[in-house]
Amino acid sequence: MPALHTRLCNLLGIRLPIIQAPMAGGPTTPELVAAVSAAGALGSFGFAYTQPETIERDSEAVRARTAASFNLNFFASPQPDDIAPAAQQEALAAVAGYYAELGLPVPEPARAPYAPDLDAQFAMALEIRPAVVTFHLGGMRPEWVRRFQSHGVRVGGGVNCIAEAEKLEALGVDFIIAQGAEAGGHRGSHLRDPYDSMTGTFALVRLVASRVKVPVVAAGGIMDGAGIAAALALGAQAVQMGTAFIPCPESGAPRVHKEAVLAAREDETLITEKFSGKPARGLANRFMREMHAKTAPQLAFPAQSAITGKLRAASARAGNPDFVAMWAGQGVALSRAMPAGDLVAKLEAEALECLDRLAALRR
Amino acid sequence: MPALHTRLCNLLGIRLPIIQAPMAGGPTTPELVAAVSAAGALGSFGFAYTQPETIERDSEAVRARTAASFNLNFFASPQPDDIAPAAQQEALAAVAGYYAELGLPVPEPARAPYAPDLDAQFAMALEIRPAVVTFHLGGMRPEWVRRFQSHGVRVGGGVNCIAEAEKLEALGVDFIIAQGAEAGGHRGSHLRDPYDSMTGTFALVRLVASRVKVPVVAAGGIMDGAGIAAALALGAQAVQMGTAFIPCPESGAPRVHKEAVLAAREDETLITEKFSGKPARGLANRFMREMHAKTAPQLAFPAQSAITGKLRAASARAGNPDFVAMWAGQGVALSRAMPAGDLVAKLEAEALECLDRLAALRR
Repeated sequence: MPALHTRLCNLLGIRLPIIQAPMAGGPTTPELVAAVSAAGALGSFGFAYTQPETIERDSEAVRARTAASFNLNFFASPQPDDIAPAAQQEALAAVAGYYAELGLPVPEPARAPYAPDLDAQFAMALEIRPAVVTFHLGGMRPEWVRRFQSHGVRVGGGVNCIAEAEKLEALGVDFIIAQGAEAGGHRGSHLRDPYDSMTGTFALVRLVASRVKVPVVAAGGIMDGAGIAAALALGAQAVQMGTAFIPCPESGAPRVHKEAVLAAREDETLITEKFSGKPARGLANRFMREMHAKTAPQLAFPAQSAITGKLRAASARAGNPDFVAMWAGQGVALSRAMPAGDLVAKLEAEALECLDRLAALRR
Repeated sequence: MPALHTRLCNLLGIRLPIIQAPMAGGPTTPELVAAVSAAGALGSFGFAYTQPETIERDSEAVRARTAASFNLNFFASPQPDDIAPAAQQEALAAVAGYYAELGLPVPEPARAPYAPDLDAQFAMALEIRPAVVTFHLGGMRPEWVRRFQSHGVRVGGGVNCIAEAEKLEALGVDFIIAQGAEAGGHRGSHLRDPYDSMTGTFALVRLVASRVKVPVVAAGGIMDGAGIAAALALGAQAVQMGTAFIPCPESGAPRVHKEAVLAAREDETLITEKFSGKPARGLANRFMREMHAKTAPQLAFPAQSAITGKLRAASARAGNPDFVAMWAGQGVALSRAMPAGDLVAKLEAEALECLDRLAALRR
């Protein structure tokens, strides 16, 4: 067996215990996923907001490049009922000035359905039959878990606490992603209030690994090979890394996002619900700060995404970071710009070097 | 050299890269400090609120038990000016009902000085000349650093971010304690707002270790030998562990505190300023929840400690956890009850076992 290989690597059909985190909303292009997977890690699509046709097209684009395992990730969370016009007007009023500032037309109310139909997404995923499907926010129904597994697809889910890990273990998932508070992007909480469930990666991974029997993947603040070795020490069988892949040339993140990630010299992230309606960690910018300062109202997840979508896109196009959702984890100041395949190779070399350094302590 | 030994171990005169965290306000008895130090780790007194005579007496009590290195820790933070009567009355009114409930006399205003004189504490520490002195909250003056060092005392300070680590490195400390957001007790922030500086241990240790040349100690959420190995992987040269030592029979923590720590099955901690005036992490209890819910006012640190002191003590005496400051980190659900010397031996064995497990991944 190659170095660094864990049992979970066998299960997922990968050489290295590294999962490139699914990052919905742009970063996870077929180019990124294919490059990561071809290099021996697990490339992942963040398909939270993606319709079945695109899921199919993007997956085929990966298969045209590599036969390696890859992962499709979904947000498994109930959608809100129809939103009252008054709530819509309040949420629109909170962002209208920003639309005007960027020269955009007056923003329009969000219209149901606010996100693609999850069953339709899953049905397409089953057809594609990737090596792995993962879900965030807890809500994959048992019959879908069994259906995927009976077709040879491994299923993993994200958790923020022990109770959620025990719930997913009972659901029968193949592995659990313990998402520490350091993690960029959306919190995966589904049983506890996300703000009461902000356990750091170090503590969470050890807690979850000590309580469940299924393999655990560590996520949150992992940026290099030393971090991979540390996660393995804590009992994880793999890591999931998002921020580290944002600056890759294959990543579809807007240029301002990549530049801001590379420019960070400190943990300059905040948690905000103002972009999507659910709490997510990203680099603090004007939109987050001002929306928090005025305690602006927002629509329930994922409807708020529709309200902010054009703003985010226009801001990115203008090369203006003020209104872009620049998701990033607390380790952002350790980010590096290099092609995804090179990054995976570097992570492997660093992790091995770290294990050698640790071995020298064991006389 | 023994296994697990790092360069910092030489500097501090210890066999194992483990520092028992200084925990002010009760837990760090001479018995605990002596047992930890005699076992090869670094026992530490949390002397934040301790007068010089007691510092001397407790240090002598350790020396009567062991010749091993130990550490004296202080809170190096400016005291507030005299507090206006109106502010006192508001803060007293917020806790008066609790005093009555516990059958205590009406609480009295806090009186300056609100904490022992730091220079007098340092002068006594210099006389005692322990192997190590550490400080929290950033404010040790350069002349004290040099004075301690010129007398052979190693000096370490706590940080919550990179900027603070760079500041302490410039100050000339011998080592830096990177306190991740998981950590129990008081946040050590001194340059950034503590609430904007809640970086998890995993990310923070790696960030700090990559930016400063002085040795780094990892703190926050470390509860066992796997955690020690993980911290060493991240580039730390030692760990600082507090919560793990709370339940030890030698610890002076109130029984309700020990029981609550051992009973925790999940991260049930919160950050509160209501006990002391500065944010600190502990097990959520009625006092914290109610004081937060009514957004009760509090005095500046450390004056609020005086306002809550009798309440905390009476609650502990009554075996009632409601008003006790049960400081604990986010790894609390991994705590175990055993004598301190046994715990140190177990941590060593677990860390070595973890390094062996990692070595098997390195083929």
